[in-house]
Amino acid sequence: MQDRVPANAARIAGDIPPPSPVAPGSRAAVAARLGLLRAELARRGLAGFVVPLADEHQGEYLPPRAQRLTWLTGFTGSAGMAVVLPEQAAIFVDGRYTLQVRDEVPTDVLAPRHIVEEPLSDWLATELAAGQRVGYDPWLHTPAQVARLGAAVEGAKGVLVAVDGNPLDAVWADQPGPPTAPVHPHPLVFAGETAAAKRLRIADLLGPAGAVVLSAPDSIAWLLNIRGGDVPCTPFALSFAILHHDARVDWFVDAGKLGPEMADHLGNGVEVQPPAALGPAIDALVAAKVRVQADPASAPAWVFDRIAAAGGTAIAADDPCALPKACKNPVEIAGFRAAHRRDAAALVRFLAWLAAEGGNGIDELDAVARLRELRAEHPLYRGGSFETISGAGPNGAIVHYRSSPRTSRRLERGQLYLCDSGAQYPDATTDVTRTVAIGEPSAEMRDRFTRVLKGHIAIATAVFPRGTTGAQLDLLARQPLWQAGLDFDHGTGHGVGSYLSVHEGPHRISKAGSAVALRPGMVVSNEPGYYKTGAYGIRIENLVTVVPVDLPGAERPMLGFETLTLAPIDRALVVTEMLSPGERTWLDAYHLRVRSDVTPLVDAATARWLAEATRPLAA
Amino acid sequence: MQDRVPANAARIAGDIPPPSPVAPGSRAAVAARLGLLRAELARRGLAGFVVPLADEHQGEYLPPRAQRLTWLTGFTGSAGMAVVLPEQAAIFVDGRYTLQVRDEVPTDVLAPRHIVEEPLSDWLATELAAGQRVGYDPWLHTPAQVARLGAAVEGAKGVLVAVDGNPLDAVWADQPGPPTAPVHPHPLVFAGETAAAKRLRIADLLGPAGAVVLSAPDSIAWLLNIRGGDVPCTPFALSFAILHHDARVDWFVDAGKLGPEMADHLGNGVEVQPPAALGPAIDALVAAKVRVQADPASAPAWVFDRIAAAGGTAIAADDPCALPKACKNPVEIAGFRAAHRRDAAALVRFLAWLAAEGGNGIDELDAVARLRELRAEHPLYRGGSFETISGAGPNGAIVHYRSSPRTSRRLERGQLYLCDSGAQYPDATTDVTRTVAIGEPSAEMRDRFTRVLKGHIAIATAVFPRGTTGAQLDLLARQPLWQAGLDFDHGTGHGVGSYLSVHEGPHRISKAGSAVALRPGMVVSNEPGYYKTGAYGIRIENLVTVVPVDLPGAERPMLGFETLTLAPIDRALVVTEMLSPGERTWLDAYHLRVRSDVTPLVDAATARWLAEATRPLAA
Repeated sequence: MQDRVPANAARIAGDIPPPSPVAPGSRAAVAARLGLLRAELARRGLAGFVVPLADEHQGEYLPPRAQRLTWLTGFTGSAGMAVVLPEQAAIFVDGRYTLQVRDEVPTDVLAPRHIVEEPLSDWLATELAAGQRVGYDPWLHTPAQVARLGAAVEGAKGVLVAVDGNPLDAVWADQPGPPTAPVHPHPLVFAGETAAAKRLRIADLLGPAGAVVLSAPDSIAWLLNIRGGDVPCTPFALSFAILHHDARVDWFVDAGKLGPEMADHLGNGVEVQPPAALGPAIDALVAAKVRVQADPASAPAWVFDRIAAAGGTAIAADDPCALPKACKNPVEIAGFRAAHRRDAAALVRFLAWLAAEGGNGIDELDAVARLRELRAEHPLYRGGSFETISGAGPNGAIVHYRSSPRTSRRLERGQLYLCDSGAQYPDATTDVTRTVAIGEPSAEMRDRFTRVLKGHIAIATAVFPRGTTGAQLDLLARQPLWQAGLDFDHGTGHGVGSYLSVHEGPHRISKAGSAVALRPGMVVSNEPGYYKTGAYGIRIENLVTVVPVDLPGAERPMLGFETLTLAPIDRALVVTEMLSPGERTWLDAYHLRVRSDVTPLVDAATARWLAEATRPLAA
Repeated sequence: MQDRVPANAARIAGDIPPPSPVAPGSRAAVAARLGLLRAELARRGLAGFVVPLADEHQGEYLPPRAQRLTWLTGFTGSAGMAVVLPEQAAIFVDGRYTLQVRDEVPTDVLAPRHIVEEPLSDWLATELAAGQRVGYDPWLHTPAQVARLGAAVEGAKGVLVAVDGNPLDAVWADQPGPPTAPVHPHPLVFAGETAAAKRLRIADLLGPAGAVVLSAPDSIAWLLNIRGGDVPCTPFALSFAILHHDARVDWFVDAGKLGPEMADHLGNGVEVQPPAALGPAIDALVAAKVRVQADPASAPAWVFDRIAAAGGTAIAADDPCALPKACKNPVEIAGFRAAHRRDAAALVRFLAWLAAEGGNGIDELDAVARLRELRAEHPLYRGGSFETISGAGPNGAIVHYRSSPRTSRRLERGQLYLCDSGAQYPDATTDVTRTVAIGEPSAEMRDRFTRVLKGHIAIATAVFPRGTTGAQLDLLARQPLWQAGLDFDHGTGHGVGSYLSVHEGPHRISKAGSAVALRPGMVVSNEPGYYKTGAYGIRIENLVTVVPVDLPGAERPMLGFETLTLAPIDRALVVTEMLSPGERTWLDAYHLRVRSDVTPLVDAATARWLAEATRPLAA
């Protein structure tokens, strides 16, 4: 799954959530809801209110309760923000959603604006009267986001004020409650390190802080070796936690979600407290002169405000779990290998089915269903890790495409079909893209595919000194395209969690860059692509993990990648003559590995197809 | 000339100044000078004082008057800072100078400290008493530097205060005066754009600012089309200027430096004012409600303080001349080409001489003298653009090596010789490194040289979309070394001025990165290397300029490089079998171009040598 718009770590790609369970309202409903909200704002002495697309955890998937923007405006995209004033209201979206927003939102009551070209500050300068108070919910914005809002509001001579209790919640009569999915232990056989050991290790990283507020659910899931199901595709529990310098944890979570086995699992070092106890716990720490840390890139401004209100000064620092969580331990890496073999069996059966059925009437949604079915046959399948991107022909060129009965195209001969999918297993998360030719591909398709493949191989075979960042490597994936004046407009790779989020920081491979060096055990996607609008899309994505590389005579400690994903790359799309001898060797060796690992896991007919699909290029 | 420690734009490499004309004092002299300074500080009610290695322009070369650190401490390195307290004093240097500082500085009165491992804040925490006042000269620090000093002093419960008049100047009896080198016009035939047009163009960039204070002498030289000679190697005049939104300039410069032709050259739009008039001019602007801009990365804190003292708020923004200056116009590029052909004639004669005399008793200083002599034969030669790095055998591995009679080694057979030099011509600045084998090189030397060459060719032949930064390309220069577990510890390339500074921002090619995209007309060095401590150093450096690249079928505007430097690359060091066909083609084509461009400019014997040195690899 590619990662087009790098934002903060918690929202690294945050792009393709499943359809919202909150049904968008009609035009009349949206107008009515805006009226209700305005009345509530007036009651509170507010002229305006900011409605972001965010929950308290800056998560990629919002629980229904947090889908306030969709409820209020009807907009179902993955990024946006509305601002409501007494007479005017506007919704700000980025370039991906300027068309969609006009389809979904009644523009007579809610003006759509391009967030970059028609920024909030310009709109406020026109629409806000001097001295008017604009509210925001400090649970739903990071401190940096509040600072930007503040600059825009103050630029218009307004006053930005934090609200106590979201006014939307007051008027959303049938707002769903917080999710209550059961929480269960993540066994040591998959985690590879006890929660007690992790708590000690992270507590040791705190430095001057006596405690850290953890707001990222995946950090808490990793730290406590627990998993949940509060949002789609990512098996964590929405909650907050405080880790103390002595490795104790206060976990602020609805105890009703915890089964009887959890007490034993958590042990003495973890105290379960109700979510509402977080504020008083922060107050008590500050009163006891304990310095409290939080991550300004992902924690809500509310945390920083609460520390300040109690008389303390927050220590702003990166989430201390993020980097240790990203560096998978040997048990987790073994899990990644096992899960990828398992996933490959389903994938190869799917590709064999595509080879037989493509061009015979199946469409994008048929393919999605078939792939899900094949994966779901395995008892360890725990659902998708994101909504499958299934793009036939021109739909493959839409980077954030989501098939629907309205848009689904048949897989026609002479076209390409792009399928980007992933699964959750208790031992790992997968994410893989293959692009296949249905029937006979054109020379241009083969040229482009081969360039994408060369970029993919350049990343897969890269050798680099310790300390190298993904930003430094990104060019490798693009150079074969650049040489023909082509490029792609998304990152080359994102981090992936271990039975957690399919987009995980703090590392990535992208030109936008991240100062975090690649370290052994990190898992990252390798997914260059090429997109020809109106014609076809190409992406080749494998997950890889960072490994030490021993070179004879090396003067520096070197690293490289081990490819985890196992699935044939469509040989019909490869122009052999464009590959260097080294590139041919890589592809043949990769295919040999795919064949030898996957053949024992599939039926005889699939194995026959696989043997053909993975035969050496020279043959 | 390589660029090891990227700092701010104005000091991009700031590494190898010529020997200081300020003679360092003996141990007794240093102790006496510290005593004088302490007495002066006591008179002013200061406990301490910070002595940076900087002038008012954050320049790479300091005029003698500004070499306060050398005068006070004896230290002659290119980066360092002393802090003097009543009983203790310390000098902070980076890893390059930890040995040299102990040679030069009397450590019983001045403790040497590693700036990173033994930071100022730690030392102050031990040595500074609560409430003690530590002074700094706001002319010699940028606002960011003052902020860091402030944090260190306040961390030790001290108070950092700006002084009015540098206390060192009060006790340095024979301190030289400001430099008074004549200033002359830089003719349109070299500049390619009138100063009046530049003033209009830059004034248009000011946005909300009504005026900008220019503190970078190279920006002023570029803007006004003037050159001077106040510091070695870089032909500019130390001065300040204010550019107003209506394109008028107030130029704060000693009028005694200006010849009679300057009035005509400057025209009506430029008013020459005494240096001391800068402060009142800022006051007048603020009083007239004009918003004043300055560059916080290069302008002295004094400028920001003065604006604030007058009741204004400075607009902190990049020097508006930096990017336009970096993008050379067609006349300047033609000048670069012409200057490089001229420089090549001297270089090729030098290399032919080396081929004949290397191993026959000549040493590093002989080579420096010979190269200077050959260049100086041309009437347009205007001196070196930096002090030549001439490293034989193990000296070649010392990245910041400077030959002296004490260190100079003979060019022995079986060793490598590295020569990094450059010249100033009125139409361009050059900077070139060649590494040659004296006698028979080892297989390892040839392997390493070929890897460095492959990296050089990868940069020279890179094709990339508009918007690409040098940070994205840096890996190309390193990958052939990485593949053997090797690397080099300096940037791949720095910008170069047009008859100006040999290190010029805002772009560069380095992993540390710069957010500035490469643009057509930018000139940058391409200088990968490899250094084996105690054995040899390798660097291959050409200047290149960014050019548009037309590719058939390209979907994006693409850029690439045109190589400007012309000099043979030692074929004896190239392992042909390690080069790809494309790399061989590049080297042969480059050598053909060198031969055809340079042959007409050299004597017959040199031409014969050149023909041999540039013959195709296959032959």
